[in-house]
Amino acid sequence: MLVEFGRTRVLCAASVQTGVPRWRRDSGLGWVTAEYAMLPRATNTRNDRESVRGKIGGRTHEISRLVGRSLRACVDYKALGENTVILDCDVLEADGGTRTAAITGAYVALADAVAWMRDRKLVRSSPLVGSVAAVSVGVIDGEPRLDLCYEEDVAAETDMNVVCTGDGRFVEVQGTAEGQPFDRAELDALVDLAAGGCAELTRIQQEALES
Amino acid sequence: MLVEFGRTRVLCAASVQTGVPRWRRDSGLGWVTAEYAMLPRATNTRNDRESVRGKIGGRTHEISRLVGRSLRACVDYKALGENTVILDCDVLEADGGTRTAAITGAYVALADAVAWMRDRKLVRSSPLVGSVAAVSVGVIDGEPRLDLCYEEDVAAETDMNVVCTGDGRFVEVQGTAEGQPFDRAELDALVDLAAGGCAELTRIQQEALES
Amino acid sequence: MLVEFGRTRVLCAASVQTGVPRWRRDSGLGWVTAEYAMLPRATNTRNDRESVRGKIGGRTHEISRLVGRSLRACVDYKALGENTVILDCDVLEADGGTRTAAITGAYVALADAVAWMRDRKLVRSSPLVGSVAAVSVGVIDGEPRLDLCYEEDVAAETDMNVVCTGDGRFVEVQGTAEGQPFDRAELDALVDLAAGGCAELTRIQQEALES
Amino acid sequence: MLVEFGRTRVLCAASVQTGVPRWRRDSGLGWVTAEYAMLPRATNTRNDRESVRGKIGGRTHEISRLVGRSLRACVDYKALGENTVILDCDVLEADGGTRTAAITGAYVALADAVAWMRDRKLVRSSPLVGSVAAVSVGVIDGEPRLDLCYEEDVAAETDMNVVCTGDGRFVEVQGTAEGQPFDRAELDALVDLAAGGCAELTRIQQEALES
Amino acid sequence: MLVEFGRTRVLCAASVQTGVPRWRRDSGLGWVTAEYAMLPRATNTRNDRESVRGKIGGRTHEISRLVGRSLRACVDYKALGENTVILDCDVLEADGGTRTAAITGAYVALADAVAWMRDRKLVRSSPLVGSVAAVSVGVIDGEPRLDLCYEEDVAAETDMNVVCTGDGRFVEVQGTAEGQPFDRAELDALVDLAAGGCAELTRIQQEALES
Amino acid sequence: MLVEFGRTRVLCAASVQTGVPRWRRDSGLGWVTAEYAMLPRATNTRNDRESVRGKIGGRTHEISRLVGRSLRACVDYKALGENTVILDCDVLEADGGTRTAAITGAYVALADAVAWMRDRKLVRSSPLVGSVAAVSVGVIDGEPRLDLCYEEDVAAETDMNVVCTGDGRFVEVQGTAEGQPFDRAELDALVDLAAGGCAELTRIQQEALES
Repeated sequence: MLVEFGRTRVLCAASVQTGVPRWRRDSGLGWVTAEYAMLPRATNTRNDRESVRGKIGGRTHEISRLVGRSLRACVDYKALGENTVILDCDVLEADGGTRTAAITGAYVALADAVAWMRDRKLVRSSPLVGSVAAVSVGVIDGEPRLDLCYEEDVAAETDMNVVCTGDGRFVEVQGTAEGQPFDRAELDALVDLAAGGCAELTRIQQEALES
Repeated sequence: MLVEFGRTRVLCAASVQTGVPRWRRDSGLGWVTAEYAMLPRATNTRNDRESVRGKIGGRTHEISRLVGRSLRACVDYKALGENTVILDCDVLEADGGTRTAAITGAYVALADAVAWMRDRKLVRSSPLVGSVAAVSVGVIDGEPRLDLCYEEDVAAETDMNVVCTGDGRFVEVQGTAEGQPFDRAELDALVDLAAGGCAELTRIQQEALES
Repeated sequence: MLVEFGRTRVLCAASVQTGVPRWRRDSGLGWVTAEYAMLPRATNTRNDRESVRGKIGGRTHEISRLVGRSLRACVDYKALGENTVILDCDVLEADGGTRTAAITGAYVALADAVAWMRDRKLVRSSPLVGSVAAVSVGVIDGEPRLDLCYEEDVAAETDMNVVCTGDGRFVEVQGTAEGQPFDRAELDALVDLAAGGCAELTRIQQEALES
Repeated sequence: MLVEFGRTRVLCAASVQTGVPRWRRDSGLGWVTAEYAMLPRATNTRNDRESVRGKIGGRTHEISRLVGRSLRACVDYKALGENTVILDCDVLEADGGTRTAAITGAYVALADAVAWMRDRKLVRSSPLVGSVAAVSVGVIDGEPRLDLCYEEDVAAETDMNVVCTGDGRFVEVQGTAEGQPFDRAELDALVDLAAGGCAELTRIQQEALES
Repeated sequence: MLVEFGRTRVLCAASVQTGVPRWRRDSGLGWVTAEYAMLPRATNTRNDRESVRGKIGGRTHEISRLVGRSLRACVDYKALGENTVILDCDVLEADGGTRTAAITGAYVALADAVAWMRDRKLVRSSPLVGSVAAVSVGVIDGEPRLDLCYEEDVAAETDMNVVCTGDGRFVEVQGTAEGQPFDRAELDALVDLAAGGCAELTRIQQEALES
Repeated sequence: MLVEFGRTRVLCAASVQTGVPRWRRDSGLGWVTAEYAMLPRATNTRNDRESVRGKIGGRTHEISRLVGRSLRACVDYKALGENTVILDCDVLEADGGTRTAAITGAYVALADAVAWMRDRKLVRSSPLVGSVAAVSVGVIDGEPRLDLCYEEDVAAETDMNVVCTGDGRFVEVQGTAEGQPFDRAELDALVDLAAGGCAELTRIQQEALES
């Protein structure tokens, strides 16, 4: 499925594979993992392909891990059985917030894959124990702002990515001072704003899954 | 730009960079190169990412080289000056004929980039000396056929990729016997069929560029 | 310098190199970067060397980036001039909290290196605009706790790493739900606890630098 | 065995290994694969070793795949049983036409290996259903020419590699316009010339195998 | 365990793993291997990490092999059973003689690991058939000298590493002319000196193991 | 040039390149380096290509370094000027003693290259200050033996590689106990035998260079 937030476009796909990684075999538990990548021309100036350079960069690694960890927060490994779901998030066009768009879209792809597994009786009960959605928020000119595009992102003094469950709890809170360190009041304002944004996305995800 | 042939979808983008590879410096001549890749879920069963495996596979290398070589056939390096155009062809969905779709789409992306360069006076005269388009043809049950989808491709006894210029000459002819070797009559029939298919694509490319 | 927190031991070293990475040349600005790694026997069961596997794992990448970003928060690039400081953080023994120990120790190594540069007149004014320290906190059996050792870390429901400046503001807040998602009250309690821990570490860093 | 065409010298060796690649296991079918490489001083100016660079170049990949595909055209996988034959083609000296020399020589090495397998009763019937040989042809100053040496190869307007079976059918036809695109008449002339060259090589292969 | 010779400090650790490498399976025999590495700041000017460069350098490879080979000289593979001991030698600070310090320290780590295995009844009889120790010797200004520090090492005309068993026989003798070739008399003098040095180290190893 | 010792065959080539590695620039001194490799079918059972595996093995690294170091013993870097000679030693067939054959042959290739440089006035005086040759010796059934073939090599209790200059001094002495450690008498006997073998090879090298 293709997720679009402003001019950011991310293709999210879930693949179900029988079996789990070696370290998890014979545990009766499933696994969910994610791979995030950007096409070379997703940004305005071309980036070299990581396959050509022969190694994955730190940023790609970091985001892939974040996406996988976030999605695992809504999964019941026992109900999944010894199956692995791989979530591929490929950024076709990047204009800020690609990692949070990837998480939000990957949840929909995962829910679709789970529905497909239930149809084929590959799982008995639903391995989903909730939903996850994510937003990026930032402080610009002293003001907390939701969903920064690339230009705002660059200008932001503080940048925060928040992943929430559908019932409003937190899975991941990552705040980073880009320029000046931030104080407790700013931290609180950003968390509030993000929680509201996630709630709105949860609603949109449900609509997408129902249609 | 997004090229679609049947269910095959390839995203083709041209990036212009000042300067040329080291071996070509101070020659006054430009360079055109291409990188082809498939998203992991472009096919029905997921393929591992080449960036994760840490090396580019032989098939990817071979197709990237073919795309670059084909596009260079319509370029005047002198008119291009010491600039490099990189053509990125990323397969979003694969259902046969991805390499020929990539060549056909890359030409349109290249022509767009050349127009952009002319607008900004980065080149004086057009570095394009013609156009290129490509088709795949094959023999199925003894019959020559144009534009094979994936299932036909697998079933084909002979598989041929042909790249033509807009004036009907050949840039590349690659015929491979998948099952039985083919004879001269079959070779001739496939070349005829392909030449006709390329002529039709040339017309469609012109329309796309004019709109 | 060797940092010890409980049984965790991290060797932190700062190396000053003339010049900056290519993308920053001729800007008049310096750069600070970090590399984090674990010896194969830092943990109880041996880990394969990343040099032998030929690639750096995602966890190593993620922590190296966090350490670098945190230390850059207290650096004035202009005062540093076109010099690069590389912070090497090698974990000799790991018992929880290695990334926060690395940040706290790297600050002391950086301050030492800056003093050495000032002694040799390599910089005119101090490139340090403050100090940074980091702690890990977590929720165990519903209780917020500071400085988790490995066994507690594994048992923690929520795990948070917080990087503060010496004047009590935040550079980085990274909270992750390991088991159940956490609510706003837990987030607040953890942030409070972490801020107190960082203040204590700031004091210890000053003592170490004065001696 | 050492193949010599003009000053081109290629060492071709066939190795028989019990078992087949993972994706082919338990099919009852065998496999044939090839690896082509050049010694660093095969050419006049030294090329870096691909083992030192840590990756295989696109040209090497492309030729290895061509050699393997060509040789598989004369193999009956069922008669081969679950065995793998690896054909190593190492260019000691390169003066044009190394890929076609490799194919022609690899066939002789394969036929020798098959004879050795039959002697030891490793196969019941012959897994060879024919022979393959290959030539390179090109257009120089408007004239079709067989067996180009390096200097002619560089000067050629069109370059074509053709792989034929011993009974005169085509396994692979790869024509590439190096300078100007070629027309249908040139294509026909080159194919005719190549077919004649392959027939001559087939005769020489038989003589070599009989002695 | 941490070995210190002058300012050289090497951390040596032995890890016992059940099973042996693939090529040794089902032989009933064990295996001993070693990995040597230097921290980036072990030397005065920082060295790049081999994990970051993505490949192990020739010097590291060579020393790892020497350490493994030397230690295997005192091991009875049969008594070890199908277990593997990995000896990690990580140089924290380097001031000459790191490879011989690694061998001497690795023996103590190995003997400790063997004692641990005997305590847990993982082996019936001792897999150690003797001990090994190593020294580096060199000729400086015409004089044979034991235990060269880095500055002496650089100045040495001849450099020799000698590995002896506890009963005074030789496991490895590696003499290298750094400047002028050496004659037979110099070779003899160095071997005598080294044998004496190893005997002294053997005594120190025994003391360390008894305490 | 092709060196043959018994059934061992090594192709040795010297390539002269203008310039030296980065760390040696502007020193006025030249450099000599070597790369050793084995073709996959040099041995009786095929070895995987290091280019395919994507990394160079420890044995290859170790031998390349030994060959380079040995050849540098007879070179005057000042007379060579800022030129680099690369010695490629490719083993076509291996039956013991490949590293010593490589050194002995590389010297002849180097002397040829030096003569070529003198002819073209690329150097004023000869950069060769002597010659080097190498042999392998071993103890078999208690008897010292020269030039072990592969089967003897495997059976040898002690294995020693010795590199001598043409005037009978030692450049490298590498003795390794394969089974039992060796005593001083054995060491002496092997060194004597090797010195005699090198003297004989020096004579043969001179003959080869004069013809």
